[in-house]
Amino acid sequence: MTAMQLGLIGLGKMGGNMRERIRRAGHTVIGYDRNPDVSDVGSLAELVEGLDAPRTVWVMVPAGGATQSVVDELGGLLSPGDTVVDGGNSRWTDDEKHAAELGAKGIGFVDAGVSGGVWGLENGYALMVGGDKAHVERLQPIFEALKPEGPYGYVHAGKVGAGHFSKMVHNGIEYAMMQAYAEGWELLEKVESVDSVREVFRSWQDGTVIRSWLLDLAVNALDDDEHLEKLRGYAEDSGEGRWTVEAAIDHAVPLPAITASLFTRFASRQDDSPQMKMIAALRNQFGGHAVESTK
Amino acid sequence: MTAMQLGLIGLGKMGGNMRERIRRAGHTVIGYDRNPDVSDVGSLAELVEGLDAPRTVWVMVPAGGATQSVVDELGGLLSPGDTVVDGGNSRWTDDEKHAAELGAKGIGFVDAGVSGGVWGLENGYALMVGGDKAHVERLQPIFEALKPEGPYGYVHAGKVGAGHFSKMVHNGIEYAMMQAYAEGWELLEKVESVDSVREVFRSWQDGTVIRSWLLDLAVNALDDDEHLEKLRGYAEDSGEGRWTVEAAIDHAVPLPAITASLFTRFASRQDDSPQMKMIAALRNQFGGHAVESTK
Amino acid sequence: MTAMQLGLIGLGKMGGNMRERIRRAGHTVIGYDRNPDVSDVGSLAELVEGLDAPRTVWVMVPAGGATQSVVDELGGLLSPGDTVVDGGNSRWTDDEKHAAELGAKGIGFVDAGVSGGVWGLENGYALMVGGDKAHVERLQPIFEALKPEGPYGYVHAGKVGAGHFSKMVHNGIEYAMMQAYAEGWELLEKVESVDSVREVFRSWQDGTVIRSWLLDLAVNALDDDEHLEKLRGYAEDSGEGRWTVEAAIDHAVPLPAITASLFTRFASRQDDSPQMKMIAALRNQFGGHAVESTK
Amino acid sequence: MTAMQLGLIGLGKMGGNMRERIRRAGHTVIGYDRNPDVSDVGSLAELVEGLDAPRTVWVMVPAGGATQSVVDELGGLLSPGDTVVDGGNSRWTDDEKHAAELGAKGIGFVDAGVSGGVWGLENGYALMVGGDKAHVERLQPIFEALKPEGPYGYVHAGKVGAGHFSKMVHNGIEYAMMQAYAEGWELLEKVESVDSVREVFRSWQDGTVIRSWLLDLAVNALDDDEHLEKLRGYAEDSGEGRWTVEAAIDHAVPLPAITASLFTRFASRQDDSPQMKMIAALRNQFGGHAVESTK
Repeated sequence: MTAMQLGLIGLGKMGGNMRERIRRAGHTVIGYDRNPDVSDVGSLAELVEGLDAPRTVWVMVPAGGATQSVVDELGGLLSPGDTVVDGGNSRWTDDEKHAAELGAKGIGFVDAGVSGGVWGLENGYALMVGGDKAHVERLQPIFEALKPEGPYGYVHAGKVGAGHFSKMVHNGIEYAMMQAYAEGWELLEKVESVDSVREVFRSWQDGTVIRSWLLDLAVNALDDDEHLEKLRGYAEDSGEGRWTVEAAIDHAVPLPAITASLFTRFASRQDDSPQMKMIAALRNQFGGHAVESTK
Repeated sequence: MTAMQLGLIGLGKMGGNMRERIRRAGHTVIGYDRNPDVSDVGSLAELVEGLDAPRTVWVMVPAGGATQSVVDELGGLLSPGDTVVDGGNSRWTDDEKHAAELGAKGIGFVDAGVSGGVWGLENGYALMVGGDKAHVERLQPIFEALKPEGPYGYVHAGKVGAGHFSKMVHNGIEYAMMQAYAEGWELLEKVESVDSVREVFRSWQDGTVIRSWLLDLAVNALDDDEHLEKLRGYAEDSGEGRWTVEAAIDHAVPLPAITASLFTRFASRQDDSPQMKMIAALRNQFGGHAVESTK
Repeated sequence: MTAMQLGLIGLGKMGGNMRERIRRAGHTVIGYDRNPDVSDVGSLAELVEGLDAPRTVWVMVPAGGATQSVVDELGGLLSPGDTVVDGGNSRWTDDEKHAAELGAKGIGFVDAGVSGGVWGLENGYALMVGGDKAHVERLQPIFEALKPEGPYGYVHAGKVGAGHFSKMVHNGIEYAMMQAYAEGWELLEKVESVDSVREVFRSWQDGTVIRSWLLDLAVNALDDDEHLEKLRGYAEDSGEGRWTVEAAIDHAVPLPAITASLFTRFASRQDDSPQMKMIAALRNQFGGHAVESTK
Repeated sequence: MTAMQLGLIGLGKMGGNMRERIRRAGHTVIGYDRNPDVSDVGSLAELVEGLDAPRTVWVMVPAGGATQSVVDELGGLLSPGDTVVDGGNSRWTDDEKHAAELGAKGIGFVDAGVSGGVWGLENGYALMVGGDKAHVERLQPIFEALKPEGPYGYVHAGKVGAGHFSKMVHNGIEYAMMQAYAEGWELLEKVESVDSVREVFRSWQDGTVIRSWLLDLAVNALDDDEHLEKLRGYAEDSGEGRWTVEAAIDHAVPLPAITASLFTRFASRQDDSPQMKMIAALRNQFGGHAVESTK
């Protein structure tokens, strides 16, 4: 293995652990974060100066404006032959823009969808990568350092954007799988004949059709709090679920389960449902059905 | 028109108004209700005694046990050649049982789905009727009295059970139509460019594809309370929605919109969603995502 | 009433009938269409020359590129003080762009969602209008000519974009209402006890909660072809349904029924469902379940 | 370990392999099947005679009528103190009936949901068991023989019915998980930037949130037939999916993803969609939209 140098921008929950895993593999990482407590350098310029050409810089900041401004700034600091990797959760449609913007200056661009969460440091990060073969190959030692051991966990999915698109669909699937377990759990909890839903879930971890890593995590969660009484039924959504549905609409692909899973999250964040107020109002209008007032 | 005698059991919100509408048409109605303040007689036996044979008795009590016990009691009181009409919201599968039970005693049975709610007294009640032709024809003057004027609002839908089945599907459609307006209303209320969603709804009452009686009711409701601030987003479901989905499952018919409309009602009645607690727990397990606790 | 002059661009199924209805109200319409057989003038320039300033030009061409190029061309031909109305099915996000582009030249812009289809010529067109009060008021005589008689069918919904947004939501609601009747119809057709689903639908036209103009149309269709045997179960979608779901995603509003209605249309256009191939493949993998091959 | 005697009724795809696995563990199995080529004995009576009291008989025949008639026949052949296990896919509501019927004769009853499919012989079968503690404990050596090695794959879920209820919910979750992967696969196959969806799926087998046994099977299937061109998009459903939705309706639990997954299967079996014919008919009625005819 050739030891590489990597600039890594964004040292949050994901980026910080990735720096650690890449370093453990023997590479040099210069990390930059706006938070000076975790940053190795004081500025992007300093980060770029610290790397030998051709440079490789991995961007791991929030999708949207933050990524755009880092890409813009790197466009001014880097040189022809350098390569930028966007490992954040960017929308695939941003990738072509970034590739074109940097490409005009001779700078390569690779998009990388990264999965692994808080477990990635120990287990490795699954990587879905998009970009030109030449740019992707240059990054290979870093990808090897990040990915899990074994034959899986890495794919060069296709052209620029294919990495983030694949990661986005991964997350869409994840939404519906989580919803599947959640629906089953709620139903089992309602049934008196079942003594312990937690033990049913635990038993499913081997020999069943539905065994999975998410199931293992569900058992962990139930071991902490058997009936999840400490939690509110409230879930954020992170962008990829929405984009998956939008991409499906663009391609006229029906996604009923994934979309249902997104909508339950939307509904979970409403204190009271406006649409159900209208249902209540209509029932009252035609049937004189009693309604509950807000006071 | 021949003036008829009718026994009417159950004088609640629906039955009380139906008695009045049938009387206005010139028929004789002997009404019975457990509530002596509204009842014309003191018992079912007294009601039956007050009618000349062949008797016709309309049952208008809650579906399930209440209807069953009235049918059982009538089976003991009535004579061969008499006819019972179940105009409540019974499940269609109960109708065959009731028809067989009464038929064994020579008593006819007709099932009638009745729509109209609080507006029925003035506008008439839509009737969907199931049963043998001979039994149905005997009831014709009463059906004429109840139904709206004009060519619509009455159908002899088919065999015993066909009336309640048709009414059940009517209610399933009703659920999804209400949901359609409710979803549109919530979305419009979110958009800043629209000055008054109420006025948009009002305008839709003519010339649009979506004009309907339910839309008129929605406008009434918004005139009372423009943003429905006085209501909670909480809706009961009355049985027919559930049975519609069950019938669809029996016949392998996909009903995505109607079922979605049933599920939003279920969700509206949960203070906190158990399934979303599981989603929150899983997100926390793999991503370290912040969760909201119940305290 | 003051007779007005109007330029009308696009004389297809909608535009042609709108020209006729406006003329019947006593206004002067100069129509332009690429098809010389229906066009009053040979070019947009000729249309603009034929109108006295301040001019009013109504654009009724397909949303997207066609509308954009007409707006661009009008921007070069019209003068400060003129007004353009986009009555096509444009996405509301295009309206602000068009308003800004024309506004920079002193030309007013109004967006108008138009409902009514082939029935509009006789019954009138429902209009949902967005734009500045001054621009909208200038158009009032034309709106009066197009709208149905009576108090409803017209609304100045709000700022630029509010007209198309309201029309878009109208169409989303329309999708779910159509789906509601369609689901109910399919279920009733499966049930042996019901003699004629057509007659059940016909009866619903009065006294029921679900009476509507769409129901009347359903009865018309069933009168033509009782079991719809002449039709394929195939439905296009026109853009507004997709945009409704996208707008809902932007605002985190759950739209389960409307989205389900969009997805059934997508699925109806697939000869074979790719996702169901994967389901079949998985069932075969774990259970040895028989699969159907394509040959 | 104590070697046990077991009667096993039903030696099909599941039962035949289970006999083999139990025998490998050193127990004696007398198998009966209507097919004499695989049966060890000629009749149920012969099977019962071949076992020492107290006997244990495992029923592994299709749910519904077939299971009922075997239970009835065993009720006549077995003696007080014997135990019957129903390991088929019976509806949980049948379990109480069977337990009562046999219990009246002093015969114990245990319900066992069995997962594992064609992989069970080698990997073991996951077991979800319901019944009285005394009856369940007697079966423990057989459960040990069938279940996978390791700590998971077996649970005494609760009272009679709890085993089949848990297995039913397992299958409901399975439906939605399969649908999740299937939706993601279809969307990825539509996108030009992705070179090989199969390789993306393969990469997901490690390090991702969505790794699972079903994902491994999906990769197997794609290795056989990369674009699943040999399969029709057609899927049966086996009862448990339907019962899961019905149980959810009974408990007012919303199951949007699982229900969507059931409905896509229903739709996959329709040559042409009746409900979409109605959509097409309505579009034609109001908009003059072109429809496709069946000829």
